[in-house]
Amino acid sequence: MNILRNHIEKIITLTDEEFELIDSCFHSKKYRKKDLVIKETDFVSQVYFIVSGLMKLYIIDRDAKQHIISFSMEDWWETDYMAFYTESKATQFLQCLEDTEVLCLSFSDYQKLNEAIPKLEHFFLKKAIGGHIANQKRILSLLTLTAKEKYEQLLHSYPSLLQRIPKTVLANYLGVSRETLSRFFVESKKM
Amino acid sequence: MNILRNHIEKIITLTDEEFELIDSCFHSKKYRKKDLVIKETDFVSQVYFIVSGLMKLYIIDRDAKQHIISFSMEDWWETDYMAFYTESKATQFLQCLEDTEVLCLSFSDYQKLNEAIPKLEHFFLKKAIGGHIANQKRILSLLTLTAKEKYEQLLHSYPSLLQRIPKTVLANYLGVSRETLSRFFVESKKM
Repeated sequence: MNILRNHIEKIITLTDEEFELIDSCFHSKKYRKKDLVIKETDFVSQVYFIVSGLMKLYIIDRDAKQHIISFSMEDWWETDYMAFYTESKATQFLQCLEDTEVLCLSFSDYQKLNEAIPKLEHFFLKKAIGGHIANQKRILSLLTLTAKEKYEQLLHSYPSLLQRIPKTVLANYLGVSRETLSRFFVESKKM
Repeated sequence: MNILRNHIEKIITLTDEEFELIDSCFHSKKYRKKDLVIKETDFVSQVYFIVSGLMKLYIIDRDAKQHIISFSMEDWWETDYMAFYTESKATQFLQCLEDTEVLCLSFSDYQKLNEAIPKLEHFFLKKAIGGHIANQKRILSLLTLTAKEKYEQLLHSYPSLLQRIPKTVLANYLGVSRETLSRFFVESKKM
Protein backbone atom coordinates (compact mmCIF):
# COMPACT_ATOMS: atom_id res chain seq x y z
CA MET A 1 0.00 0.00 0.00
CA ASN A 2 1.07 3.59 -0.59
CA ILE A 3 3.14 4.82 2.42
CA LEU A 4 1.23 8.10 2.79
CA ARG A 5 -2.20 6.44 2.51
CA ASN A 6 -1.18 3.78 5.00
CA HIS A 7 0.03 6.52 7.38
CA ILE A 8 -3.20 8.56 7.15
CA GLU A 9 -5.43 5.47 7.34
CA LYS A 10 -3.98 4.62 10.74
CA ILE A 11 -6.27 7.43 11.93
CA ILE A 12 -9.04 7.94 9.34
CA THR A 13 -10.45 5.83 6.49
CA LEU A 14 -10.26 7.21 2.93
CA THR A 15 -12.04 6.35 -0.30
CA ASP A 16 -9.90 5.91 -3.43
CA GLU A 17 -11.21 9.25 -4.75
CA GLU A 18 -10.31 11.03 -1.53
CA PHE A 19 -6.79 9.60 -1.54
CA GLU A 20 -6.37 10.52 -5.22
CA LEU A 21 -7.11 14.15 -4.35
CA ILE A 22 -4.73 14.05 -1.36
CA ASP A 23 -1.99 12.39 -3.42
CA SER A 24 -2.29 15.03 -6.16
CA CYS A 25 -1.39 17.73 -3.59
CA PHE A 26 1.85 16.14 -2.39
CA HIS A 27 5.07 16.14 -4.37
CA SER A 28 8.14 14.08 -3.69
CA LYS A 29 11.58 15.58 -3.11
CA LYS A 30 14.92 13.96 -2.42
CA TYR A 31 17.66 15.56 -0.36
CA ARG A 32 21.24 14.47 0.26
CA LYS A 33 22.84 14.18 3.68
CA LYS A 34 23.75 17.68 4.98
CA ASP A 35 21.29 19.46 2.61
CA LEU A 36 19.39 22.33 4.22
CA VAL A 37 15.63 21.92 3.68
CA ILE A 38 14.81 25.18 5.52
CA LYS A 39 17.18 28.07 6.24
CA GLU A 40 16.52 30.90 8.71
CA THR A 41 14.68 33.78 6.92
CA ASP A 42 13.37 31.42 4.18
CA PHE A 43 9.67 31.90 3.54
CA VAL A 44 8.17 28.61 4.81
CA SER A 45 5.28 27.38 2.67
CA GLN A 46 5.67 23.60 3.00
CA VAL A 47 5.22 20.89 5.59
CA TYR A 48 7.19 17.66 5.04
CA PHE A 49 6.08 14.07 5.54
CA ILE A 50 9.28 12.03 5.85
CA VAL A 51 9.25 8.88 3.70
CA SER A 52 12.82 7.88 4.61
CA GLY A 53 15.81 9.52 6.27
CA LEU A 54 16.54 11.65 9.30
CA MET A 55 16.56 15.42 9.90
CA LYS A 56 17.40 17.84 12.69
CA LEU A 57 15.56 21.08 13.46
CA TYR A 58 17.78 23.70 15.07
CA ILE A 59 18.30 27.35 15.83
CA ILE A 60 21.49 29.42 15.79
CA ASP A 61 21.84 31.99 18.59
CA ARG A 62 23.56 35.40 18.40
CA ASP A 63 26.87 33.80 19.43
CA ALA A 64 26.61 31.47 16.40
CA LYS A 65 25.96 28.55 18.74
CA GLN A 66 23.69 25.83 17.41
CA HIS A 67 20.81 24.53 19.60
CA ILE A 68 18.94 21.41 18.41
CA ILE A 69 15.19 21.55 18.98
CA SER A 70 14.25 18.08 17.73
CA PHE A 71 14.98 15.18 15.39
CA SER A 72 12.53 13.67 12.91
CA MET A 73 12.51 10.45 10.91
CA GLU A 74 10.28 8.17 8.78
CA ASP A 75 6.53 8.59 9.28
CA TRP A 76 6.97 11.94 11.07
CA TRP A 77 5.92 15.37 9.87
CA GLU A 78 8.32 18.27 10.16
CA THR A 79 8.70 21.94 9.27
CA ASP A 80 9.25 25.26 11.04
CA TYR A 81 5.64 25.17 12.30
CA MET A 82 5.64 28.73 13.65
CA ALA A 83 6.51 29.99 10.17
CA PHE A 84 4.33 27.47 8.28
CA TYR A 85 1.08 28.17 10.13
CA THR A 86 1.58 31.93 10.22
CA GLU A 87 2.84 31.98 6.59
CA SER A 88 5.98 33.82 7.61
CA LYS A 89 9.77 33.53 7.56
CA ALA A 90 11.74 30.76 9.24
CA THR A 91 13.50 31.33 12.55
CA GLN A 92 14.83 27.76 12.45
CA PHE A 93 16.94 25.51 10.23
CA LEU A 94 15.94 22.04 9.02
CA GLN A 95 18.86 19.89 7.85
CA CYS A 96 19.22 16.27 6.68
CA LEU A 97 21.42 13.99 8.78
CA GLU A 98 20.96 11.22 6.20
CA ASP A 99 19.85 11.10 2.54
CA THR A 100 16.16 11.93 2.99
CA GLU A 101 13.01 11.57 0.89
CA VAL A 102 10.02 13.70 1.77
CA LEU A 103 6.52 14.38 0.49
CA CYS A 104 5.86 18.14 0.50
CA LEU A 105 2.46 19.73 1.11
CA SER A 106 2.02 23.48 0.64
CA PHE A 107 0.02 25.58 3.13
CA SER A 108 -2.56 26.44 0.45
CA ASP A 109 -2.99 22.75 -0.48
CA TYR A 110 -3.18 21.88 3.25
CA GLN A 111 -6.08 24.33 3.56
CA LYS A 112 -7.67 23.15 0.30
CA LEU A 113 -7.56 19.48 1.40
CA ASN A 114 -9.02 20.24 4.83
CA GLU A 115 -11.92 22.02 3.17
CA ALA A 116 -12.52 19.29 0.58
CA ILE A 117 -12.14 16.38 3.04
CA PRO A 118 -13.20 17.63 6.50
CA LYS A 119 -12.26 14.37 8.26
CA LEU A 120 -8.62 15.20 7.37
CA GLU A 121 -8.87 17.82 10.13
CA HIS A 122 -9.36 14.94 12.55
CA PHE A 123 -6.09 13.46 11.25
CA PHE A 124 -4.20 16.77 11.50
CA LEU A 125 -5.74 17.44 14.95
CA LYS A 126 -4.25 14.13 16.17
CA LYS A 127 -0.88 15.11 14.68
CA ALA A 128 -1.00 18.63 16.18
CA ILE A 129 -1.83 17.15 19.61
CA GLY A 130 1.11 14.75 19.20
CA GLY A 131 3.39 17.70 18.41
CA HIS A 132 2.01 19.70 21.35
CA ILE A 133 2.68 16.81 23.76
CA ALA A 134 6.18 16.13 22.33
CA ASN A 135 7.04 19.81 22.82
CA GLN A 136 5.71 19.73 26.38
CA LYS A 137 7.91 16.71 27.14
CA ARG A 138 10.91 18.61 25.75
CA ILE A 139 10.07 21.61 28.00
CA LEU A 140 9.85 19.33 31.06
CA SER A 141 13.15 17.68 30.18
CA LEU A 142 14.85 21.08 29.68
CA LEU A 143 13.47 22.28 33.03
CA THR A 144 14.17 19.24 35.18
CA LEU A 145 16.49 16.62 33.63
CA THR A 146 20.27 16.34 33.73
CA ALA A 147 22.08 15.59 30.44
CA LYS A 148 22.45 11.95 31.49
CA GLU A 149 18.72 11.65 32.22
CA LYS A 150 17.92 13.24 28.83
CA TYR A 151 20.18 10.62 27.22
CA GLU A 152 18.41 7.80 29.07
CA GLN A 153 14.98 9.18 28.15
CA LEU A 154 15.98 9.24 24.46
CA LEU A 155 17.45 5.73 24.73
CA HIS A 156 14.23 4.49 26.30
CA SER A 157 11.77 6.29 23.96
CA TYR A 158 13.63 6.07 20.63
CA PRO A 159 16.39 3.41 20.79
CA SER A 160 16.65 3.07 16.98
CA LEU A 161 16.79 6.85 16.48
CA LEU A 162 19.62 7.16 18.98
CA GLN A 163 21.81 4.77 17.00
CA ARG A 164 21.40 6.82 13.82
CA ILE A 165 22.31 10.23 15.24
CA PRO A 166 26.01 11.16 14.78
CA LYS A 167 27.75 11.40 18.19
CA THR A 168 28.74 15.06 17.74
CA VAL A 169 25.13 15.97 16.95
CA LEU A 170 23.82 13.99 19.92
CA ALA A 171 26.36 15.66 22.25
CA ASN A 172 25.11 19.06 21.00
CA TYR A 173 21.46 18.05 21.62
CA LEU A 174 22.28 16.96 25.18
CA GLY A 175 24.52 19.98 25.81
CA VAL A 176 27.57 17.90 26.76
CA SER A 177 31.06 17.20 25.36
CA ARG A 178 31.83 14.15 23.18
CA GLU A 179 33.82 12.73 26.13
CA THR A 180 30.86 13.00 28.54
CA LEU A 181 28.60 11.38 25.93
CA SER A 182 31.04 8.45 25.60
CA ARG A 183 30.82 7.98 29.37
CA PHE A 184 26.99 7.82 29.10
CA PHE A 185 27.34 5.11 26.43
CA VAL A 186 29.62 2.98 28.60
CA GLU A 187 27.50 3.48 31.72
CA SER A 188 24.20 2.68 29.94
CA LYS A 189 25.68 -0.59 28.59
CA LYS A 190 26.57 -1.65 32.14
CA MET A 191 22.94 -1.14 33.26
CA MET B 1 -23.29 37.16 23.96
CA ASN B 2 -22.25 34.03 25.83
CA ILE B 3 -18.44 34.10 26.49
CA LEU B 4 -17.85 30.54 25.28
CA ARG B 5 -19.94 30.96 22.13
CA ASN B 6 -18.20 34.24 21.37
CA HIS B 7 -14.82 32.53 21.85
CA ILE B 8 -15.65 29.59 19.54
CA GLU B 9 -17.31 31.82 16.93
CA LYS B 10 -14.04 33.72 16.46
CA ILE B 11 -13.02 30.62 14.46
CA ILE B 12 -16.20 28.78 13.35
CA THR B 13 -19.88 29.74 13.01
CA LEU B 14 -22.46 27.84 15.08
CA THR B 15 -26.22 27.46 14.83
CA ASP B 16 -28.25 27.91 18.04
CA GLU B 17 -28.85 24.15 18.15
CA GLU B 18 -25.14 23.39 17.82
CA PHE B 19 -24.25 25.81 20.59
CA GLU B 20 -26.98 24.37 22.81
CA LEU B 21 -25.40 20.93 22.48
CA ILE B 22 -21.92 22.35 23.18
CA ASP B 23 -23.15 24.34 26.16
CA SER B 24 -24.82 21.26 27.66
CA CYS B 25 -21.42 19.51 27.79
CA PHE B 26 -19.61 22.23 29.75
CA HIS B 27 -20.08 22.85 33.45
CA SER B 28 -18.94 25.86 35.42
CA LYS B 29 -16.64 25.64 38.42
CA LYS B 30 -15.23 28.31 40.69
CA TYR B 31 -11.90 28.08 42.45
CA ARG B 32 -10.29 30.31 45.07
CA LYS B 33 -6.80 31.75 44.83
CA LYS B 34 -4.23 29.02 45.70
CA ASP B 35 -6.69 26.15 44.98
CA LEU B 36 -5.14 23.19 43.15
CA VAL B 37 -7.19 22.31 40.07
CA ILE B 38 -4.92 19.38 39.14
CA LYS B 39 -2.46 17.56 41.41
CA GLU B 40 0.30 15.21 40.26
CA THR B 41 -1.07 11.62 40.02
CA ASP B 42 -4.69 12.86 39.67
CA PHE B 43 -6.52 11.16 36.84
CA VAL B 44 -7.03 14.00 34.33
CA SER B 45 -10.39 13.82 32.58
CA GLN B 46 -11.14 17.54 32.05
CA VAL B 47 -9.89 20.43 29.94
CA TYR B 48 -10.60 23.94 31.29
CA PHE B 49 -11.74 27.03 29.39
CA ILE B 50 -10.86 29.97 31.64
CA VAL B 51 -13.72 32.48 32.00
CA SER B 52 -11.86 34.70 34.50
CA GLY B 53 -8.75 34.42 36.64
CA LEU B 54 -5.18 33.25 36.29
CA MET B 55 -3.48 29.87 36.76
CA LYS B 56 0.03 28.41 36.69
CA LEU B 57 0.98 24.98 35.36
CA TYR B 58 4.07 23.55 37.06
CA ILE B 59 6.07 20.46 37.86
CA ILE B 60 7.92 19.52 41.04
CA ASP B 61 11.26 17.78 40.57
CA ARG B 62 12.82 15.11 42.80
CA ASP B 63 14.51 17.81 44.90
CA ALA B 64 11.06 19.32 45.61
CA LYS B 65 11.94 22.29 43.40
CA GLN B 66 9.02 23.86 41.51
CA HIS B 67 9.42 24.61 37.76
CA ILE B 68 6.71 26.69 36.10
CA ILE B 69 5.79 25.52 32.60
CA SER B 70 3.26 28.21 31.69
CA PHE B 71 0.61 30.68 32.85
CA SER B 72 -2.97 30.83 31.55
CA MET B 73 -5.71 33.43 31.85
CA GLU B 74 -9.13 34.45 30.46
CA ASP B 75 -10.00 33.01 27.04
CA TRP B 76 -7.25 30.37 27.25
CA TRP B 77 -7.62 26.61 27.53
CA GLU B 78 -5.54 24.71 30.04
CA THR B 79 -5.02 21.24 31.48
CA ASP B 80 -2.24 18.66 31.78
CA TYR B 81 -2.58 17.88 28.06
CA MET B 82 -0.30 14.83 28.13
CA ALA B 83 -2.59 13.25 30.73
CA PHE B 84 -5.87 14.55 29.21
CA TYR B 85 -5.29 13.26 25.66
CA THR B 86 -3.85 9.94 26.78
CA GLU B 87 -6.49 9.56 29.54
CA SER B 88 -3.82 9.01 32.16
CA LYS B 89 -2.49 10.45 35.41
CA ALA B 90 -1.15 13.98 35.82
CA THR B 91 2.60 14.62 35.95
CA GLN B 92 1.90 18.34 36.48
CA PHE B 93 0.10 20.66 38.89
CA LEU B 94 -2.41 23.34 37.90
CA GLN B 95 -2.97 26.02 40.56
CA CYS B 96 -4.97 29.27 40.71
CA LEU B 97 -2.99 32.48 41.24
CA GLU B 98 -6.29 34.43 41.47
CA ASP B 99 -9.91 33.47 42.15
CA THR B 100 -10.70 31.65 38.91
CA GLU B 101 -13.85 30.60 37.07
CA VAL B 102 -13.59 27.85 34.48
CA LEU B 103 -15.84 25.88 32.15
CA CYS B 104 -14.92 22.18 32.30
CA LEU B 105 -15.22 19.77 29.37
CA SER B 106 -14.63 16.05 29.93
CA PHE B 107 -12.61 13.97 27.45
CA SER B 108 -15.65 11.84 26.61
CA ASP B 109 -17.76 14.96 25.94
CA TYR B 110 -14.86 16.44 23.91
CA GLN B 111 -14.96 13.32 21.72
CA LYS B 112 -18.77 13.28 21.59
CA LEU B 113 -18.92 16.95 20.50
CA ASN B 114 -16.27 16.47 17.80
CA GLU B 115 -18.29 13.59 16.38
CA ALA B 116 -21.62 15.43 16.52
CA ILE B 117 -20.24 18.74 15.17
CA PRO B 118 -17.26 17.91 12.91
CA LYS B 119 -16.40 21.58 12.30
CA LEU B 120 -15.49 21.77 16.01
CA GLU B 121 -12.37 19.79 15.05
CA HIS B 122 -11.36 22.80 12.96
CA PHE B 123 -11.68 24.94 16.09
CA PHE B 124 -9.71 22.49 18.26
CA LEU B 125 -7.10 22.07 15.48
CA LYS B 126 -6.48 25.85 15.56
CA LYS B 127 -6.17 25.70 19.37
CA ALA B 128 -3.82 22.68 19.25
CA ILE B 129 -1.64 24.46 16.68
CA GLY B 130 -1.59 27.53 18.95
CA GLY B 131 -0.47 25.32 21.86
CA HIS B 132 2.16 23.61 19.70
CA ILE B 133 3.60 26.98 18.62
CA ALA B 134 3.51 28.43 22.18
CA ASN B 135 5.41 25.37 23.43
CA GLN B 136 7.96 25.71 20.63
CA LYS B 137 8.54 29.36 21.60
CA ARG B 138 9.08 28.26 25.22
CA ILE B 139 11.65 25.64 24.04
CA LEU B 140 13.51 28.28 21.99
CA SER B 141 13.51 30.68 24.95
CA LEU B 142 14.79 27.94 27.31
CA LEU B 143 17.54 27.04 24.83
CA THR B 144 18.72 30.51 23.85
CA LEU B 145 17.47 33.37 26.06
CA THR B 146 18.93 34.82 29.25
CA ALA B 147 16.55 35.44 32.19
CA LYS B 148 16.49 39.15 31.33
CA GLU B 149 15.58 38.42 27.70
CA LYS B 150 12.82 36.04 28.86
CA TYR B 151 11.47 38.86 31.04
CA GLU B 152 11.53 41.30 28.14
CA GLN B 153 9.82 38.77 25.84
CA LEU B 154 7.03 38.32 28.41
CA LEU B 155 6.74 42.08 28.89
CA HIS B 156 6.46 42.54 25.14
CA SER B 157 4.04 39.66 24.42
CA TYR B 158 1.79 39.76 27.53
CA PRO B 159 2.19 43.13 29.33
CA SER B 160 -1.13 42.78 31.24
CA LEU B 161 -0.33 39.20 32.32
CA LEU B 162 3.04 40.29 33.68
CA GLN B 163 1.42 42.80 36.03
CA ARG B 164 -0.86 40.13 37.53
CA ILE B 165 1.80 37.52 38.32
CA PRO B 166 3.12 37.72 41.92
CA LYS B 167 6.82 38.69 41.91
CA THR B 168 7.97 35.49 43.68
CA VAL B 169 6.15 33.37 41.08
CA LEU B 170 7.60 35.40 38.21
CA ALA B 171 11.13 35.08 39.66
CA ASN B 172 10.64 31.28 39.80
CA TYR B 173 9.42 31.22 36.16
CA LEU B 174 12.48 33.18 35.02
CA GLY B 175 14.83 31.18 37.25
CA VAL B 176 16.21 34.25 39.08
CA SER B 177 16.12 35.69 42.62
CA ARG B 178 13.59 38.36 43.71
CA GLU B 179 16.48 40.87 43.81
CA THR B 180 17.51 40.17 40.20
CA LEU B 181 13.86 40.48 39.12
CA SER B 182 13.62 43.89 40.84
CA ARG B 183 16.66 45.01 38.83
CA PHE B 184 14.89 43.92 35.58
CA PHE B 185 11.86 46.04 36.60
CA VAL B 186 13.97 49.14 37.18
CA GLU B 187 15.99 48.64 34.01
CA SER B 188 12.93 48.04 31.82
CA LYS B 189 11.32 51.27 33.09
CA LYS B 190 14.40 53.21 32.03
CA MET B 191 14.11 51.85 28.46
